[in-house]
Amino acid sequence: MEVFGPTVQGEGMVIGRKTMFVRTAGCDYQCSWCDSAFTWDGTGKADIRLLSAKEIFDELLAVGGEGFDHVTISGGNPALLPQLASLIDLLHAEGIRVALETQGSRWQPWFTVIDDLTLSPKPPTSGMVTDLGKLDEIIGELSQAKTVFCLKVVVFDEADLAYAKTIHIRYPGVPFYLQAGNGNLLETDPAALLPYLVERYEWLIEFVMDDNELRGVHVLPQLHTWVWGNKKGV
Amino acid sequence: MEVFGPTVQGEGMVIGRKTMFVRTAGCDYQCSWCDSAFTWDGTGKADIRLLSAKEIFDELLAVGGEGFDHVTISGGNPALLPQLASLIDLLHAEGIRVALETQGSRWQPWFTVIDDLTLSPKPPTSGMVTDLGKLDEIIGELSQAKTVFCLKVVVFDEADLAYAKTIHIRYPGVPFYLQAGNGNLLETDPAALLPYLVERYEWLIEFVMDDNELRGVHVLPQLHTWVWGNKKGV
Repeated sequence: MEVFGPTVQGEGMVIGRKTMFVRTAGCDYQCSWCDSAFTWDGTGKADIRLLSAKEIFDELLAVGGEGFDHVTISGGNPALLPQLASLIDLLHAEGIRVALETQGSRWQPWFTVIDDLTLSPKPPTSGMVTDLGKLDEIIGELSQAKTVFCLKVVVFDEADLAYAKTIHIRYPGVPFYLQAGNGNLLETDPAALLPYLVERYEWLIEFVMDDNELRGVHVLPQLHTWVWGNKKGV
Repeated sequence: MEVFGPTVQGEGMVIGRKTMFVRTAGCDYQCSWCDSAFTWDGTGKADIRLLSAKEIFDELLAVGGEGFDHVTISGGNPALLPQLASLIDLLHAEGIRVALETQGSRWQPWFTVIDDLTLSPKPPTSGMVTDLGKLDEIIGELSQAKTVFCLKVVVFDEADLAYAKTIHIRYPGVPFYLQAGNGNLLETDPAALLPYLVERYEWLIEFVMDDNELRGVHVLPQLHTWVWGNKKGV
């Protein structure tokens, strides 16, 4: 649906990493606060293209030139696409590291070869319900394959934070990232959005610092929204 | 000199990590833009205390309670203190991970047991001159010991960025972090500082994105200054 970059990864386990983005269309979720709803709500339908791995790689080179060695696959939910295996293999053959984020609702065998894999189950404010049995299964497969991965939960309120805690406690050995949610997707002026985002990040930090059950965690903002606001494609 | 937290690590390879801070006094450098000059310029002299490893650990517990499993040792230059080995051993025995940052001007055998080790050589704007032979030696020792570590360079201008590139190219296999420098240490109002810091971060991103020799890099701000400004002890 989109190929853009190079830019910095704005969130999670490889925050700050110079990377290209490939965004796939389609999602099995419809999160209330999704910041890429155009991938699944029909509004971006005209931008959907069916591309081979080679065509995607050519577009990465055309857009990003020689200046990258890392590609992030995002969505939608890229785990809906078994055929991503060929893109991942091609990128690896070219010496490029691959990051991918998915909510953990579907398994793909190629999860085990992703270099920076993030499972991001969705908290109550999303309106979605996590299938914990499925998540157990996926995390079991990843652990068996000794894949390095992390968990990330976006948090908007105290109920979300309670959900995040149950996830962290359920999978204690997995690196855990908490991210302050952006509840203001309609603000078009980055300067007006920034104080709100800083306040939300500080709110989350305070809760986590006071909670003795949340110890081995990272608390991060979405850096790209701090810099570019709600602008798409950066 | 200081024991505080828990708070989030604001920069570098473990950005966002919930951690306690232990700050040591004394430095072999006097960087022009040092944000902790009180550790070496005499102004913090009254706060310097000579503490045993056990006393430091007791203070960590008194200040941080039960809510931490990670301690960051910062300075000053903690690499001036051979006796830190006993603190690191004690923390490890308590199941606590240890991060440490140093400029790479002095070697300590305990570098090899640090969990999150950052070498941060200083660019031209600091007024310091890097002893590259010494840095080669330290990185050689770390590589031989298979210690996982990263390099971080703070960047204020294009000359600093050119310096950062020479470091990145000299040690190509080492994870590399670029950090936008805070050239406004006197601003006391975080809200007034924030637009300046965002602008400096965006400036650095633009340069790095356009530079094909800087590929496998992370570009990060100092998150704590975005949230708390120049306030000490957070």
